[in-house]
Amino acid sequence: MKKTIPLLLAVLFAAGALDTANASGPYRNPDNKNLKDPLEGTYPVPYKLPVVAEITAQLERVRDFVDRATPSRIVDKQTGDQVTDFTQPIAGAIVAPSPNDFGIMNYEMGVVHAGLMNMRALTGDARWTALTERHLAFFAERTPYFRAQEAQFKLGRANSFARFIKPHALDDAGSMTAAMIRARLAGIGPDLSAQIAFSGDWVHRQQVRLKDGTLARNRPQAWSVWADDMYMSIPALAELGRMTGQRRYYDDAVKNALQLSGYLFNRQAGLYTHGIHLHEQDLPQFYWGRANGWAVLALSDLLDVLPKNHPGYQKVLAQHRRALRGIAQQQSGEGLWHQMLDRHDSFLETSGSAMFVYAIAHAINQGWISPTTYGSIAQAGWGGVSSRINPHGGIEDGVVATTLAGDNVYYYNRPVSVNAMAGYGPVLLAGAEIIKLLNNPRVEITDKVKTYHYRTKAP
Amino acid sequence: MKKTIPLLLAVLFAAGALDTANASGPYRNPDNKNLKDPLEGTYPVPYKLPVVAEITAQLERVRDFVDRATPSRIVDKQTGDQVTDFTQPIAGAIVAPSPNDFGIMNYEMGVVHAGLMNMRALTGDARWTALTERHLAFFAERTPYFRAQEAQFKLGRANSFARFIKPHALDDAGSMTAAMIRARLAGIGPDLSAQIAFSGDWVHRQQVRLKDGTLARNRPQAWSVWADDMYMSIPALAELGRMTGQRRYYDDAVKNALQLSGYLFNRQAGLYTHGIHLHEQDLPQFYWGRANGWAVLALSDLLDVLPKNHPGYQKVLAQHRRALRGIAQQQSGEGLWHQMLDRHDSFLETSGSAMFVYAIAHAINQGWISPTTYGSIAQAGWGGVSSRINPHGGIEDGVVATTLAGDNVYYYNRPVSVNAMAGYGPVLLAGAEIIKLLNNPRVEITDKVKTYHYRTKAP
Amino acid sequence: MKKTIPLLLAVLFAAGALDTANASGPYRNPDNKNLKDPLEGTYPVPYKLPVVAEITAQLERVRDFVDRATPSRIVDKQTGDQVTDFTQPIAGAIVAPSPNDFGIMNYEMGVVHAGLMNMRALTGDARWTALTERHLAFFAERTPYFRAQEAQFKLGRANSFARFIKPHALDDAGSMTAAMIRARLAGIGPDLSAQIAFSGDWVHRQQVRLKDGTLARNRPQAWSVWADDMYMSIPALAELGRMTGQRRYYDDAVKNALQLSGYLFNRQAGLYTHGIHLHEQDLPQFYWGRANGWAVLALSDLLDVLPKNHPGYQKVLAQHRRALRGIAQQQSGEGLWHQMLDRHDSFLETSGSAMFVYAIAHAINQGWISPTTYGSIAQAGWGGVSSRINPHGGIEDGVVATTLAGDNVYYYNRPVSVNAMAGYGPVLLAGAEIIKLLNNPRVEITDKVKTYHYRTKAP
Repeated sequence: MKKTIPLLLAVLFAAGALDTANASGPYRNPDNKNLKDPLEGTYPVPYKLPVVAEITAQLERVRDFVDRATPSRIVDKQTGDQVTDFTQPIAGAIVAPSPNDFGIMNYEMGVVHAGLMNMRALTGDARWTALTERHLAFFAERTPYFRAQEAQFKLGRANSFARFIKPHALDDAGSMTAAMIRARLAGIGPDLSAQIAFSGDWVHRQQVRLKDGTLARNRPQAWSVWADDMYMSIPALAELGRMTGQRRYYDDAVKNALQLSGYLFNRQAGLYTHGIHLHEQDLPQFYWGRANGWAVLALSDLLDVLPKNHPGYQKVLAQHRRALRGIAQQQSGEGLWHQMLDRHDSFLETSGSAMFVYAIAHAINQGWISPTTYGSIAQAGWGGVSSRINPHGGIEDGVVATTLAGDNVYYYNRPVSVNAMAGYGPVLLAGAEIIKLLNNPRVEITDKVKTYHYRTKAP
Repeated sequence: MKKTIPLLLAVLFAAGALDTANASGPYRNPDNKNLKDPLEGTYPVPYKLPVVAEITAQLERVRDFVDRATPSRIVDKQTGDQVTDFTQPIAGAIVAPSPNDFGIMNYEMGVVHAGLMNMRALTGDARWTALTERHLAFFAERTPYFRAQEAQFKLGRANSFARFIKPHALDDAGSMTAAMIRARLAGIGPDLSAQIAFSGDWVHRQQVRLKDGTLARNRPQAWSVWADDMYMSIPALAELGRMTGQRRYYDDAVKNALQLSGYLFNRQAGLYTHGIHLHEQDLPQFYWGRANGWAVLALSDLLDVLPKNHPGYQKVLAQHRRALRGIAQQQSGEGLWHQMLDRHDSFLETSGSAMFVYAIAHAINQGWISPTTYGSIAQAGWGGVSSRINPHGGIEDGVVATTLAGDNVYYYNRPVSVNAMAGYGPVLLAGAEIIKLLNNPRVEITDKVKTYHYRTKAP
Repeated sequence: MKKTIPLLLAVLFAAGALDTANASGPYRNPDNKNLKDPLEGTYPVPYKLPVVAEITAQLERVRDFVDRATPSRIVDKQTGDQVTDFTQPIAGAIVAPSPNDFGIMNYEMGVVHAGLMNMRALTGDARWTALTERHLAFFAERTPYFRAQEAQFKLGRANSFARFIKPHALDDAGSMTAAMIRARLAGIGPDLSAQIAFSGDWVHRQQVRLKDGTLARNRPQAWSVWADDMYMSIPALAELGRMTGQRRYYDDAVKNALQLSGYLFNRQAGLYTHGIHLHEQDLPQFYWGRANGWAVLALSDLLDVLPKNHPGYQKVLAQHRRALRGIAQQQSGEGLWHQMLDRHDSFLETSGSAMFVYAIAHAINQGWISPTTYGSIAQAGWGGVSSRINPHGGIEDGVVATTLAGDNVYYYNRPVSVNAMAGYGPVLLAGAEIIKLLNNPRVEITDKVKTYHYRTKAP
């Protein structure tokens, strides 16, 4: 019977079996002041109206975690000694290793910058983007050094700045291009226009494509199409459009948004399959959470800057709504989403969940979807995500890097780790967007009969 | 491996971790006399041909529980002393508090009366409806007193008879109106025709409606449409039709049965979503068990009295069949249904399950659906439901009052309680209908190869 | 949080709660030599490139288990003494009881012979079919004796050779007919042409059929149509076609493959419901794993011998692809499939899983489906199935005989047993086919980023 579950937990707690570092649940809803209310139970994650000060404090911890995890120093690979002479490159010079194995130029870091810039815009407090400024200054300052190192020693992928010097895939270019453009347009950090042009060109003109112009990969197969690539390309193309005013970038972003969705979005399920191999039809589907997160993050970023009169605007918006509808349908009873969205026996995964919370809350704030339907979904999602931020600002239960695979044993058993970098940016984005939602003057929130109703405020 | 589960249970039993008050499982099927049959396992709930005497004894316990839980005395709110002078109202007079917080006029009590009247009709034993007679007599006797109290003291919802004097919602009127008419037509209890007219008018003419005539609410949003309201209106309208012979009541019942189903029934899922907010389309769906229970209970009650030549009869029957088909598909491996019908990781909930057992068994008995397909589903369902009746006649694992909400964290984590009143009537209905099924002369039941086959008996 | 699960297991292991006889998991992937790889976790079943020598050793154990479990001696039922005088039948003569209750003439044994013959064909090693030769010789030698016993004593089903002498159902005839024909065409065992003709005639002409020619049963209802009957008929009809060259057998096999699929295959789910009762439409579906296994095994066997220019070939192939697609979609995170394929809270079942591994791997090897999509599904499936082969060659977690039932309480709670015979043949088939896949010259397998990619090798 249902009541045995808490008892089982009690036994295991008594036996010291459960790690309680991050879980202080079960949680009571503190908004209900009647401690004896028989209609109020407990929750496995916080279920309450989020509090701006609490979110802010959590995001500060996350920001500081990433700050500690991303040193911007050059050291000698062998000795570990700091390199201070940049007049002549040495073969062993590398960016100082991250205690958490975070790559300072990885695409995941582009999302971190997006989150930090959103918090700065929201609060006006420049401390939120100190990390962004530090990283971008480091890039501007040291790219010539690593270019010279590459010219002399031909290190290839072993060059710490390889992603900026010789991209291999959209992963190396798209997300950071979008971040650099956003920083530029917000007046944050140094002039990186040359790098923006170089990395942006890779997205727009160098990456392999299908005959119909859809961005593709030759791994694991020729030709594979990945949902992840929506984020690795579309935000960069959209921001290039915004920065340059050139229609061709918007067209390319819209084309890829619609064509990648055409290949990968299953309308019946309302979800994106992780990827396909061209010329194979009617495949088993793998609705990996984070891949769906990349997809809606990309659509959301595109809609943020795409002119409303662009002929693709309404189609992209319709697709974004369809995807958010399908994703919302799969939310778990703990607010988070599962590693495989439709497989409710797979584990609850943080990075995808944070992307969904951001995308849903942002779509409400932008007026794309209704607060009535989606407000409490976003709130419940934040309850789940926030429970995974540990006291050190680490993100728990995020899944590590995951390739396009073909069986559930792989997907169900991917490890989770506080070092899984992909969750950090989305948690920052999600928290910032929930603050915006709480402060949204067009939304009113009522707390009644143990739950929350979001509504469009009457004008 | 599978066998570890019993071992895990064994360890926890040894540790005293599991509440065994209600669960004496795992159960062996006593109809299989071969104790060493390798093809026979155990079950988490009773799996056997139900026994009429056992059901009867269980229902007596449930009836007596409700009887104890619903005192029909007037007391002084402050002192607790019984009020005996009814010549002049006093402000503090209230109906004596229920030890289980059961409201004597609540809609859930209308279902209890329906179950008790069914048992009386089945057995001819008037003890089944002693509680009904006591309650109805109390209503007849004390309504003038509380009307006078209201006129003098304006207590509003604090008036113990507020539901009868000034209804606020369908919850206050529909279910009890249906119960009072059924009692009247069965010759049970006093003349309550004035109250029937008053409460019935509220359902038929006072409750807010959409422009198309569909019954609606202005909570939590303007306009919200709830599946629960099918039961809160349709049985009353149908019974008003039967009592008065006036076609307009049948028309209104049919219209609401079909239009509410049109708004709320998802044909692909075969289930009712709990509710919608008008003008929002393609919403995430919340297939809350009990809401589906109210829906099929309402359709079932309507079909019981609607003349077969009414132009809506076949449409209502078709919708009832569709809903029962979808519900049956979701039955769990423990016979019960889950709190969220399609979410098999949500808890097993008793009140909705009991409604489904009743609706399925009744539809077989009425010839609306086939015993071949649905007989063993009803039987297995009763096995699950019966395991939730505790030795004191309390119903375990029924979910407490639950509003129309918008996120799964709410629905998954609603508390269950023996004081959740909504399960009591449905358990009485279900048990009575299973007895009818076992005695149904048109159905034969064979017990073979460890399972049960129900068949239409050859004429 | 996710990490609590290993801890919970640790506590229970410490408490001796978990049976570790067969499960030496969690498993690390031995193909990843980096023991500190943060991107590599553990698996509940082996996840690695299968090794031919390991599979072979496991299949030898399974073969030897079946060999020990199927004595081919005649004994006196009362005394247990061996019968040596076959000049005159005695009433008490029976085939010596199997220690595992394995019936030497049961349909499950036809699948065992198929698996053993495949291993012989693959390895050229006649030891694989010694069991088959022993059984078939025993049939040839003793059928006259049991026919005489039957003529004299009229034992009916108590006659040990009843299935060969007087079949009652397709179960008695189809699978063994197919096995005997395959042995004959491979030159294994004695001449059983009379028995083939007799049992084959039962499939083709004696078994009850619907008016449209679809094979049917009169249990549990008149008329019931079972997915299991696809295997109980189609392989025999197909092999009769191959042996005789007569088109009518192929036509009958194709007709039943398509018509049974028409009644039972749900295109939306992509799965077979266990069975239907004619004239009842839109029923709740029970996607029992093993029934789906029988269905795809039958389609696979038919496609193996059906001439490619038969007018039904492409239709059968299309249906097989649809079914494999739907089945693949339901694979669990442990490689195995669930007892009820779409119900991921039902137990993991071995016999159906082994059938799926065989059918998928075979379809890749035959070029019917793509290695890119299905290779890692087959491999992951074998990882799960192989974990259920115990050190004695017993198959764990196979479900016992299961009838066509009508409720989930029955299906979810069927016992599993090492004596469940239906898993043995499929495990042999699956292992042999995985060896073939590993050796398939047209398939290349790469092991990258912790998973496996199967590809059609460039010519």
